[in-house]
Amino acid sequence: MTVGDLTERDLIARIQAKLPPAPPWLPVGIGDDAAVVEPERNRLEVLSVDTIVEGVHFDRAFCPPDVVGHRALAVNLSDLAAMGAAPRAALLAMALPAALEVDDFDGIVSGLATLAAEHRLHVVGGNLARSPGPLVIDVTVTGTVKRRQVLTRAGAKPGDAVYVSGAIGAARAGLALLQTTDDSRLTTDDRRLTTAYLRPSPRVRLGVLLARNRAAGACIDLSDGLSDGVHRIAEASRVGIAVDADALPIPAAARAAFASRGCDPVAEALAGGDDYELLFTVRRRRTRSAVAAAKLAGIPITRVGECTERGGVVLRRAGAETPLSLTGYSHFGAASPA
Amino acid sequence: MTVGDLTERDLIARIQAKLPPAPPWLPVGIGDDAAVVEPERNRLEVLSVDTIVEGVHFDRAFCPPDVVGHRALAVNLSDLAAMGAAPRAALLAMALPAALEVDDFDGIVSGLATLAAEHRLHVVGGNLARSPGPLVIDVTVTGTVKRRQVLTRAGAKPGDAVYVSGAIGAARAGLALLQTTDDSRLTTDDRRLTTAYLRPSPRVRLGVLLARNRAAGACIDLSDGLSDGVHRIAEASRVGIAVDADALPIPAAARAAFASRGCDPVAEALAGGDDYELLFTVRRRRTRSAVAAAKLAGIPITRVGECTERGGVVLRRAGAETPLSLTGYSHFGAASPA
Repeated sequence: MTVGDLTERDLIARIQAKLPPAPPWLPVGIGDDAAVVEPERNRLEVLSVDTIVEGVHFDRAFCPPDVVGHRALAVNLSDLAAMGAAPRAALLAMALPAALEVDDFDGIVSGLATLAAEHRLHVVGGNLARSPGPLVIDVTVTGTVKRRQVLTRAGAKPGDAVYVSGAIGAARAGLALLQTTDDSRLTTDDRRLTTAYLRPSPRVRLGVLLARNRAAGACIDLSDGLSDGVHRIAEASRVGIAVDADALPIPAAARAAFASRGCDPVAEALAGGDDYELLFTVRRRRTRSAVAAAKLAGIPITRVGECTERGGVVLRRAGAETPLSLTGYSHFGAASPA
Repeated sequence: MTVGDLTERDLIARIQAKLPPAPPWLPVGIGDDAAVVEPERNRLEVLSVDTIVEGVHFDRAFCPPDVVGHRALAVNLSDLAAMGAAPRAALLAMALPAALEVDDFDGIVSGLATLAAEHRLHVVGGNLARSPGPLVIDVTVTGTVKRRQVLTRAGAKPGDAVYVSGAIGAARAGLALLQTTDDSRLTTDDRRLTTAYLRPSPRVRLGVLLARNRAAGACIDLSDGLSDGVHRIAEASRVGIAVDADALPIPAAARAAFASRGCDPVAEALAGGDDYELLFTVRRRRTRSAVAAAKLAGIPITRVGECTERGGVVLRRAGAETPLSLTGYSHFGAASPA
C-alpha cells in the first residue's frame, strides 16, 4: 500500500496515532485551520525551519525511514540548542511522492515522533502535499528562552576560549562508509561512525544549560561544519579566531577512516557537516560554568581555539598559522556531500 | 544567471533586500541559527504551515513568479484569517531547482514580500535548500488572537446561519481558462476570473473583525472548496448543514464559463478550491455584528445555508434536498485540479 492509496485525512490520523496527548498549553491542535498555542510566560520565543530533500540531504538507499524522520527533526532541534532554547512545538510539512509505501511513511513519522518525545517537543500541526519529485520534509520548531539567556553568534570577545561539544568528523566519515561499503561489511567501529551520521543527538540540554548559567558568549550549531561555524561566529562577533588543529576532537576511528582513503583527517573534520555539535565561546572567568554545564548534560566539551583581536580565522598546526578556508560556501548549484 | 550560480548567502541577501526593517518585537532576525521573537502580551499564538509544490499547486506556464510568491503566502494568511488571528511572523523555506533563474527567484520573493507587507506580516527567518525536482515553497506563519476570540471549526450550533465571504467558483473558472486559453484571447470578464485564481485576497481583516466582535461561531477557509468546508464544520461542530444552491455567490462570468463547457455551475463552485474565502456560522442574534464586520472589512458576505439539528450535509435545490457529496476527499495520489 502506498500513500497514494490513502486520503490526506487517513495519513493525518496515522500521524496523530503516534503522538502523545496534547499538552495544556495547546488549546487547538491538529485538525483545525491552524494550531493555537499559549505562549510561555516571561520567555522569548525562538523559531526555526529546516528542510531536508531526498537526494540532497538524505539517500533512502542507506537511510531507513525512521532515520529520515529522526534527521528531519534533529537539524531543527540543533538550531534551538544553538540559541539556548528549550524545545516546545513543531509543525511537520511533508511533500510525499504518491508511490511512497505507507510503511515507510509510518517509519518516518515514528522516527520524528520518538525524537520529539525525547525532547518534550509536541507536534501541533502541519501539512501534507503531493510531490511529483523527491520526498521533502520541512519541520518548523519553536522553543523558549529567557530574555537575558539567548545565545547568538554575536557574543564572542577577544580572549574567549572556543569550545566544541562531542566529536567532529564522525558523521562525515560515517556517510562515506555508508556510500561506499556494504552494510554487512561494517565493523563495530564503523557502526559508531555511521550512527553519528544516521542518528545525530542534538545537544539540546547542553545548549539550554550553557544559556542558563551564562557560560557561553556566542554559540552556533555545526550543521555546516566547524570551519563554517568558526567563520560565522568570527564575522557576527567581529573577532578573529585561531583554531588548534591538534586539539580537534576527531575520533580515532574517523581519523583512520579518512587516512585509509588518503584524506587529511583535520581538513575532513573541519569541512564535514552533519555533526550537529555546538561550537561556543567562553570568557575566561566562565570556564567553570561551561565545564559544569557539560558535566550536567553528560556531553564532553573540548577547547579547540581562542578568539583574537584581529587576524581573521586561522588554523594553528605544527607551529604555523594558515588562513582557514571557508569550505562551506559552495555555490548553491554544487553537489553537497550529504 | 540561475540560483545555482549563487551561494546561499547571496540568495538570503536578495531576500533581505526586499524586507522592511525588523519590528521591535524581533530581537534576532534572519542570520542566526533561529529567529527570536517577543510574544505579544495577553494573546494566544496561532501557527500554521502550508506547502505549494510546482506541478501540483501551481504551473509556472501561467503563474508568473510574483504570483507563485503571492499564492505561497496567501494560503497561510487565509488559515490565520479562519482562526480570527492577526498575522505576525513568517518563516520562508524554499527548495530550489539549481536551474531556476535568479530573476524568477527575485520575483517569487517580491510577490511574497508585497503581500506580507500589506498584512503587516514580517519574514523573520527561513531556509534555502536545493531541489533535484520541482520548486517547493513552504511558508510557516504565526498570528495572534485573544483567548476568547479564537475561531475554530467547532463553534456552530443548530439554527445558526451559514455565511460565505466574497464569491465562490471564480478561482476554479479562472484556472480552467488559464489551462485552456491563450493569454491574448482572454476578455476583461475572463481576467476577473483568472485574477481570482492568480492573486487571491486572503480575508484577514474580515476574520479578525468576526473574531473581535464575536460574530462568528465556527469558521474555516475555503482552500479545499465550499463542500469540503461545510462538511468539516458540520463534523467538528456535530451539526447538520443545509446549503441553498440558489444562494451561492457564483459570479455571472464564472457561471457562464462553466456552462459554456457543459458543466453545472453549482457543482463546480461547490467543488472548487482556491477561493480562499471564509465560511462561517452566525447565531441569529449576532447577525448585525456579522454584517457590521463585513461592512468594515469591505467584503460582501452571503447567507448560503443554515445549521440543523441533524440530517447531515444537504444541498437544497429546486425544492428538493439531496446529500452533498464530499468532493474534496480524493485519494492522495489522485491528480488535483490545481
